[in-house]
Amino acid sequence: MTKVKGRVAVVGLGPGDLDYMIPAVYKAIQGAEVVIGYKTYIDLIKPLLEGKQVINNGMRKEIERCQLAVEMAEEGKNVVLVSSGDPGIYGMAGALLEVKEEKNSEIDVEILPGITAVSGAAASLGAPLMHDFVVISLSDLLTEWEVIKKRLYHAAAGDFVVALYNPKSMGRTTQIQEAVEILLRHRNEETPVGIVKNAKRHGEKVVVTTLGKMLKEEIDMTTVVIIGNSNTYIKNGKIITPRGYSL
Amino acid sequence: MTKVKGRVAVVGLGPGDLDYMIPAVYKAIQGAEVVIGYKTYIDLIKPLLEGKQVINNGMRKEIERCQLAVEMAEEGKNVVLVSSGDPGIYGMAGALLEVKEEKNSEIDVEILPGITAVSGAAASLGAPLMHDFVVISLSDLLTEWEVIKKRLYHAAAGDFVVALYNPKSMGRTTQIQEAVEILLRHRNEETPVGIVKNAKRHGEKVVVTTLGKMLKEEIDMTTVVIIGNSNTYIKNGKIITPRGYSL
Ligand SMILES: C[S@@+](CC[C@H](N)C(=O)[O-])C[C@H]1O[C@@H](n2cnc3c(N)ncnc32)[C@H](O)[C@@H]1O
Ligand SMILES: C[S@@+](CC[C@H](N)C(=O)[O-])C[C@H]1O[C@@H](n2cnc3c(N)ncnc32)[C@H](O)[C@@H]1O
Repeated sequence: MTKVKGRVAVVGLGPGDLDYMIPAVYKAIQGAEVVIGYKTYIDLIKPLLEGKQVINNGMRKEIERCQLAVEMAEEGKNVVLVSSGDPGIYGMAGALLEVKEEKNSEIDVEILPGITAVSGAAASLGAPLMHDFVVISLSDLLTEWEVIKKRLYHAAAGDFVVALYNPKSMGRTTQIQEAVEILLRHRNEETPVGIVKNAKRHGEKVVVTTLGKMLKEEIDMTTVVIIGNSNTYIKNGKIITPRGYSL
Repeated sequence: MTKVKGRVAVVGLGPGDLDYMIPAVYKAIQGAEVVIGYKTYIDLIKPLLEGKQVINNGMRKEIERCQLAVEMAEEGKNVVLVSSGDPGIYGMAGALLEVKEEKNSEIDVEILPGITAVSGAAASLGAPLMHDFVVISLSDLLTEWEVIKKRLYHAAAGDFVVALYNPKSMGRTTQIQEAVEILLRHRNEETPVGIVKNAKRHGEKVVVTTLGKMLKEEIDMTTVVIIGNSNTYIKNGKIITPRGYSL
């Protein structure tokens, strides 16, 4: 008997609104027999899940979800593993590939990208990126804080626009303060900052402020923070990092 | 007579394949009276343009396109300005807002994001990003080469995954060599590198190589280059930057 070869598609839902999810992901979900994901994300695509086997579990169960996905694909199933935003940016793509390799599995894997939080947030803020930028996660769950601090220093000294993912959680509140301190050593207090909670999904909240004042604003795990470079300015409520064109 | 208020939507087409363009952009194009863009991008969405006024012009005419977009919106038109990838990442969002402000125009502007090149390329390579990363353009058309070099240094020293946009053109060939030199001061020759030409569109070409060997490969203006950090590895042809989970 030849074994039926299953597959896993790791797909990015984008920021949350289905109007921001690419058709390739829509089609992958439609064609799947099994859909696996963190409960909050599964809820976002409920209308697409009728007649499918749906497995949702809690936060921080990433590896469990990946193992399940690989096992079911080994059984010949067509599995979709959902990730928020882009699965390749602090998402499920890496974990799935790591688990697959660890199991020496030969299933097919496809990664389908999504609009990542920084793209969604930037669109709501105006044009804060536009130039060279860095993406840094402030979560020290899987990375030593010293490494993150070093990266914050280099981001600041290199005059990059800085996007902070996982900026603050209930139990993790000092990291964002230290990040601001590090940035203030290289950038002035008036540097524009955009804070977007729930970018491009229900409950979006956009705040335009400055590096000197940003810590007074609400920041949590559903927020992304974008800090301008030395050329960034605010005009009519929008943040603009000039590209360098002469107008 | 009250003036009819027009609008400009600056939309991201994503990497090129319509299956990778979000529905919000599709709808904006459908609802537009005028669509403005660089010819190559206009061609990608030809099937959606029937019955619309289409204005396409050549490369490096970004500011002209923005001025036209603002002027037509001032006349009350519903205008879509198209950008490749994400308009907020080396795209048209910033230029449009700059031109609008320079003209003191009060038209409505909406930015709709797209899958940016690095997300599309990463998906084809496996999971090379996954951790903190920087995006740097090697084009010194609008930015001094000294500034770019400084950023390359900080990206290398901070052990970021590095994505290079505009890596090389016909007339600009030494920058990528210097970039590799700078990176090699901080990373070893075996560091995984992914080179993706025409990511997620017709003619995609994916190369997995190393920092020591990458200059032997074809690199041009339709290519994005992703260089791993010190933990990145290659397995079964895929590039993986581990997030730090214990499996
Ligand atoms: C584990 S990361 C996942 C990122 C996701 N893969 C992406 O590409 O957007 C979670 C962090 O992403 C950011 N994030 C994700 N979606 C967001 C949204 N719609 N609005 C604001 N921030 C978001 C927040 O900083 C959050 O703490
Ligand atoms: C002026 S930038 C525009 C970037 C675009 N706004 C984005 O977000 O992808 C042009 C550069 O983007 C990269 N690029 C854009 N689309 C690409 C694709 N489909 N495949 C590979 N590289 C791409 C190349 O490095 C190219 O030189």
